[in-house]
Amino acid sequence: MSETPLSPAFRAKTVLSHLRETMSAQVSTVESVRVEHSHGEALDAACLPVAVVFAESTADVSTVLRLCHEHRVPVVAFGAGTSVEGHVTPPEHGISLDLSRMKEIVQFNAEDLDCRVQAGLTRQELNLRIRDSGLFFPVDPGGEATLGGMCATRASGTAAVKYGTMKENVLGLTVVLATGEVIRTGGRVRKSSTGYDLTSLFVGSEGTLGIITEIQLRLYGLPEAIAAAVCQFETVDDAVRTAVELIQYGIPVARVELADEVQMAACIAYSHLDELRPLPTLFFEFSGGPAAVREQVEATEGIARENRGLGFTWADTPEERSRLWKARHNAYWAARAIDHTALVISTDCIVPISRLAELIDGVRQDVAVSGLRAAMVGHVGDGNFHTLILTDPTPEGRRRLLDLDRQIVGRALALGGSCSGEHGVGIGKQEFLEAEHGAGALSVMRALKQTMDPHDILNPRKLLPPGEVYRG
Amino acid sequence: MSETPLSPAFRAKTVLSHLRETMSAQVSTVESVRVEHSHGEALDAACLPVAVVFAESTADVSTVLRLCHEHRVPVVAFGAGTSVEGHVTPPEHGISLDLSRMKEIVQFNAEDLDCRVQAGLTRQELNLRIRDSGLFFPVDPGGEATLGGMCATRASGTAAVKYGTMKENVLGLTVVLATGEVIRTGGRVRKSSTGYDLTSLFVGSEGTLGIITEIQLRLYGLPEAIAAAVCQFETVDDAVRTAVELIQYGIPVARVELADEVQMAACIAYSHLDELRPLPTLFFEFSGGPAAVREQVEATEGIARENRGLGFTWADTPEERSRLWKARHNAYWAARAIDHTALVISTDCIVPISRLAELIDGVRQDVAVSGLRAAMVGHVGDGNFHTLILTDPTPEGRRRLLDLDRQIVGRALALGGSCSGEHGVGIGKQEFLEAEHGAGALSVMRALKQTMDPHDILNPRKLLPPGEVYRG
Repeated sequence: MSETPLSPAFRAKTVLSHLRETMSAQVSTVESVRVEHSHGEALDAACLPVAVVFAESTADVSTVLRLCHEHRVPVVAFGAGTSVEGHVTPPEHGISLDLSRMKEIVQFNAEDLDCRVQAGLTRQELNLRIRDSGLFFPVDPGGEATLGGMCATRASGTAAVKYGTMKENVLGLTVVLATGEVIRTGGRVRKSSTGYDLTSLFVGSEGTLGIITEIQLRLYGLPEAIAAAVCQFETVDDAVRTAVELIQYGIPVARVELADEVQMAACIAYSHLDELRPLPTLFFEFSGGPAAVREQVEATEGIARENRGLGFTWADTPEERSRLWKARHNAYWAARAIDHTALVISTDCIVPISRLAELIDGVRQDVAVSGLRAAMVGHVGDGNFHTLILTDPTPEGRRRLLDLDRQIVGRALALGGSCSGEHGVGIGKQEFLEAEHGAGALSVMRALKQTMDPHDILNPRKLLPPGEVYRG
Repeated sequence: MSETPLSPAFRAKTVLSHLRETMSAQVSTVESVRVEHSHGEALDAACLPVAVVFAESTADVSTVLRLCHEHRVPVVAFGAGTSVEGHVTPPEHGISLDLSRMKEIVQFNAEDLDCRVQAGLTRQELNLRIRDSGLFFPVDPGGEATLGGMCATRASGTAAVKYGTMKENVLGLTVVLATGEVIRTGGRVRKSSTGYDLTSLFVGSEGTLGIITEIQLRLYGLPEAIAAAVCQFETVDDAVRTAVELIQYGIPVARVELADEVQMAACIAYSHLDELRPLPTLFFEFSGGPAAVREQVEATEGIARENRGLGFTWADTPEERSRLWKARHNAYWAARAIDHTALVISTDCIVPISRLAELIDGVRQDVAVSGLRAAMVGHVGDGNFHTLILTDPTPEGRRRLLDLDRQIVGRALALGGSCSGEHGVGIGKQEFLEAEHGAGALSVMRALKQTMDPHDILNPRKLLPPGEVYRG
């Protein structure tokens, strides 16, 4: 195609030449760098970005967006590339804006239990740097994700049952808007009722409304006492009922995670958990004052016993505990290791807790009928779990995988659930959004997108499927 | 003024005549009803609504908004009229849409710890109706506010330190948009990462983006054990430090409230708390498992002792507890009773907890210099408190009152705080919004308002001061 002044390719080149003038050391067009920035961990085929720009400050992000806005060149933010829903896949003739060099802790307010970080810092890096303070940031999606990416996808993970998700733990943001203008949202106070909640609007917006460059986070004191254990069960149903009753009785468990027998076999092999059997398993963590923890443990043991639990194995030392939770966090990789040649996707359904047993039962039937291999692991205390489905890397295998995925999501939506508890929409979940939210709510979301980014340069074609736009 | 077809008065009359045709039994133009709907509990002088419409369903609200949208007639929602910031003051030639007849519990899901209610139900009514279930809704602003109004102002109150505010406890909404279109936001699941967080956008939007008609609420199990106590101190500073350290040590207190010596004198007189002295006082509540409560109580007593607390008085029976907290909740009325002829306003500042002692100290100096009487009471565990300022009901008295109010807000903003922790913006706090949020964030809020309500019929001239509008 010829490069007219109006063509997307020409406009991208114009932006690139401007960027080379002003911040050349931070711009890369090296093939391997572009390939690395062309995908997350999802299935979706990638297109290469025109260039990768490594931002080192909010001002850098603003410079890039101002240029891209002027020339109508699309931009996608890139953190650690751990998205499983295609969030970071570059648009055609677009820039990948890498924020992973932005790793400063801008403020650390131990007395107020909060801090302000740049978006490229990962959760693990934050916790490592503040470990001597007695404080920590609890939201724990497992992977080494950046805090900016976790904000953009409204991430959660194993600790959400106690501490909530990014939604509950972000106090404020610095956001660069489509025009390059920089705003701050929220603040440092624990609550406020002054004005629209812009912070919550940007959290979960997947880089489509603005690019998050700084985050004010809540921190928590390290618990005085922690206890971790596993309990195995003969059936998934017994394990699920135990988790559900724990929540219904209001026992303030810190984590409660389920792995089914397929997942446990994979974990035992991958993480050498030789003391465990390939049976449905709950992983527990309790934390708080010593007496409170004892009280929670006793109540939980009682519930597990009534549901035919096969006894608790306690992780008594910090090392043992860390080994156990590392194994849980590596469940995704353990499942992939079942067959290195297979295509793998992870579902992310969530339902009200009273419907969880019914959903899991249905999903297991669907998996059996499909003939595909699948492992199940998840945050059952929230009603959220992942089915890691493996298939042949063929078009037919891929079709069967996506069919099963649709069937599972359909079940969750029919039970009043959501198609994604924590992975986000990206490309992968767009087809389910109207069924989940209704046409009216989606039309409002599209109106907000048009208002914030009328030229559609911020991560275009992500999150929102095309359709009606609300006009007031 | 003559009534041309284009005049606001003519348009309002047109809407009124349509409403009389279709829902006449629910439309009132009786003077006393209009007067009752012309104000909340704020200072601001009122203008009467053209009519009051008593909605009985979401469909009614939709009918009213569709008509008002067509004829460009402004509408303000009305619940219990407990706003202290002028939220419910009607616009000129506008309709007051009363939702207080909408009191149904639409769904009650005990197993999932959630329910769906109509917006006109009050918190007390909800808790009364579900009391046999063992569950309750904790957000507790003191007054008999409707849950719709609490949503619209992002209310909180004494229990926020443990349970969070409306922001954390609303799972989803039914909202009628400016056009009369009805949408649902959120859902029943505990977390979701699919799409923009419309629920959080409407929570706190004060009826300016849409009218909330139904709310999906989180519920909680009644705690197994509850303990309540008061501890008095010689100085406000000692009391504040006790509350601050409690939070910094991460003790999961259920409530911790401060009343200063002026407020306590008023409370003792108003609520016959004859066992207490007019000294700075902390009100505590602890809840959870019995062992956890004991642990929290011991830790708290230790902290209070170190800060020269004068010993704990325990409320051992539910009746005693209820008497104590009723006295705390009546603090506003107790302060008003200091002088029935006085004008009273309540500030609502909040700061990061490490700055609370400094702020309170500064406010007490400001009060002393002003020569006005003021009582102090508040949610110190969140960093939030109210200064109830009394003045003569004269223009000069009013001026002195507002001067002191501005001085106090200025102090809070300078310490990284917010001008309102829970009362909202309404009319009263608009002048502080730019200083608090910055021009950029406000320009985005205005753009969202224009998108959702381009004809400015939804509670016009509330929340947002005039100014620049973001254009992407």
